[in-house]
Amino acid sequence: MKKIQNVNFDKTKESVVILDQSLLPNKTVYLSLSSLPEMFDAIYTLKVRGAPAIGIFTAFGIAVLMKKHKNEDIDSFKDNFRKYKEKLFSARPTAVNLGWALSRMESVIEKNGTLSTSELSELLFDEAKAIQDEDIRMCESISALGLSLLKDGDGIITHCNAGPLATSLYGTGLGPILLGKEKGYEFKVFCDETRPLFQGARITAYELTNAGVDCTLICDNMASFVMKEGKINACLVGCDRVAANGDTANKIGTSGLAILAAHYGIPFYVLGPSSTVDFSCKSGDDIVVELRKEEEIKTKFFCSPIAKDDVKCLNPSFDVTDSRLITAIITEKGICRYPYTESLKILKG
Amino acid sequence: MKKIQNVNFDKTKESVVILDQSLLPNKTVYLSLSSLPEMFDAIYTLKVRGAPAIGIFTAFGIAVLMKKHKNEDIDSFKDNFRKYKEKLFSARPTAVNLGWALSRMESVIEKNGTLSTSELSELLFDEAKAIQDEDIRMCESISALGLSLLKDGDGIITHCNAGPLATSLYGTGLGPILLGKEKGYEFKVFCDETRPLFQGARITAYELTNAGVDCTLICDNMASFVMKEGKINACLVGCDRVAANGDTANKIGTSGLAILAAHYGIPFYVLGPSSTVDFSCKSGDDIVVELRKEEEIKTKFFCSPIAKDDVKCLNPSFDVTDSRLITAIITEKGICRYPYTESLKILKG
Repeated sequence: MKKIQNVNFDKTKESVVILDQSLLPNKTVYLSLSSLPEMFDAIYTLKVRGAPAIGIFTAFGIAVLMKKHKNEDIDSFKDNFRKYKEKLFSARPTAVNLGWALSRMESVIEKNGTLSTSELSELLFDEAKAIQDEDIRMCESISALGLSLLKDGDGIITHCNAGPLATSLYGTGLGPILLGKEKGYEFKVFCDETRPLFQGARITAYELTNAGVDCTLICDNMASFVMKEGKINACLVGCDRVAANGDTANKIGTSGLAILAAHYGIPFYVLGPSSTVDFSCKSGDDIVVELRKEEEIKTKFFCSPIAKDDVKCLNPSFDVTDSRLITAIITEKGICRYPYTESLKILKG
Repeated sequence: MKKIQNVNFDKTKESVVILDQSLLPNKTVYLSLSSLPEMFDAIYTLKVRGAPAIGIFTAFGIAVLMKKHKNEDIDSFKDNFRKYKEKLFSARPTAVNLGWALSRMESVIEKNGTLSTSELSELLFDEAKAIQDEDIRMCESISALGLSLLKDGDGIITHCNAGPLATSLYGTGLGPILLGKEKGYEFKVFCDETRPLFQGARITAYELTNAGVDCTLICDNMASFVMKEGKINACLVGCDRVAANGDTANKIGTSGLAILAAHYGIPFYVLGPSSTVDFSCKSGDDIVVELRKEEEIKTKFFCSPIAKDDVKCLNPSFDVTDSRLITAIITEKGICRYPYTESLKILKG
């Protein structure tokens, strides 16, 4: 399997190297980012995307930025850290992992107030690497747990992208497929293209094809067709936020796929880190869905608009899947099943 | 309501005038076609599309072509007719209405063997107009029957295009909406964009917006979202072929929409002429679904490909909706309900 690694330091630790996801699949361009404006832009314009990947990138980025201040006094060092933290956080304030990673980096400085700034700079590099290593281990656990629910030869459908580029090695939603491939399983995977931004076509199909997985791209509205033809044994999707009762917010189209799966009697699995469960949301009704620009539906990607200016569009970015439609929610801590209000409690604390 | 008429004679009856559907919505271009190669090309390259519209166009076309032969002797007249018929039929041999319209035009010549070729030429114009008039009346009946199932203010979702451009005035799937608009109903319509060829975005949204209907374009995978939000009271779709048991072949994505509708308890209506019911197909299992080119998914419409060359695609053009998911099938002869094996019999003969 050809592994894709999306966030790295360069050799001198003076820049963060990422694969530019916004140019996929037509161009494979690695960016070497060393300044605050470059890093801000990379997050803001989705050159790096996927909640865990954004967290890792930000940790790597702020470590690189702080290296320039390793000979300053501690007050100046802390001031610069706060300045960078504020700016990077503003790039995508709703991305949970962005704030989480920055807070974790900051606590390294707070907990080690007696060390020199040069030593603190080293610790920031270690912490960034630790965040990435933990994400890799978490993806490995999720992948192994997910794989235990599949069998060799299974037909699998997936929606949007929860693969290596959105996380670390393996990914979450794609984890069982990629781990299975390493172990010699041969799955037949169908990727929803995932309108409007085509993450399924542009990223998932790219990652799976690179990994040598048998993968077929379909339009989102073809899922019922492949299910009816008996080609699908399981659905695997990631998640953006899971309510305490298991209702799951994920890329728009996920809830429809879950309803089709229930109709055809196909298990529907949600995969993600335990930190995705938001116990402050009792149910999906508490999750607010972001509405995005009409332009993503009508003009982005197209050589000429697919509808005229006077046509209204509705562009919800996510939808909420009713927990009763979800066969299991798989986190690094285990496999939870309905009723989730009970089963998800094992993830607390 | 601004009416869109898609097939007409020019004033001198020396050409057929159509709106070029392949350029919508970015260009509104009317074509005036007077030669066989032009007419063949219009059908072949989908400048005119929609089964009833193709039938009407072909009847108009062959009437125009035969006008040039109105001073020939009857044998030469008949020879030329057969030559044109053969060529036009080959443009889209699977389109039911194409062959049907040509046979009907031919029978005008056969039944009136004692008339002059000049008189026969006139009768061909009359027959073409009769075919169009019948289609208009049929659409009116379907629209009125469909409208009887709706109420003012309803939210409606539709998939692909079964509107005026695919048929005659009103259309079938869109008929109740457009007739309702004339009668002062205010519907809120959501149009699935209908991947891969975007007929919903390019044609349905264009037709409804032109008619002043409140219409919102969504990606196909957003249907579950708008249904869950309570925005939808009914689904209206056209049909390409209906089996004797009511299983219905229509544009890919229709069966998925029907499953969502059933899940949310929303009625799902199929609208089309009674001639669409194919009693030789016992069930949907007898309907063969056309698989089309990968290029339609990956590159057509896009400024750069949405997936790389090495990504496989599956591109079924239609799917079959299980008759148990269909609330009613509405033809010009009445409203049929499950079990369709019984109810559709009223359409026979």
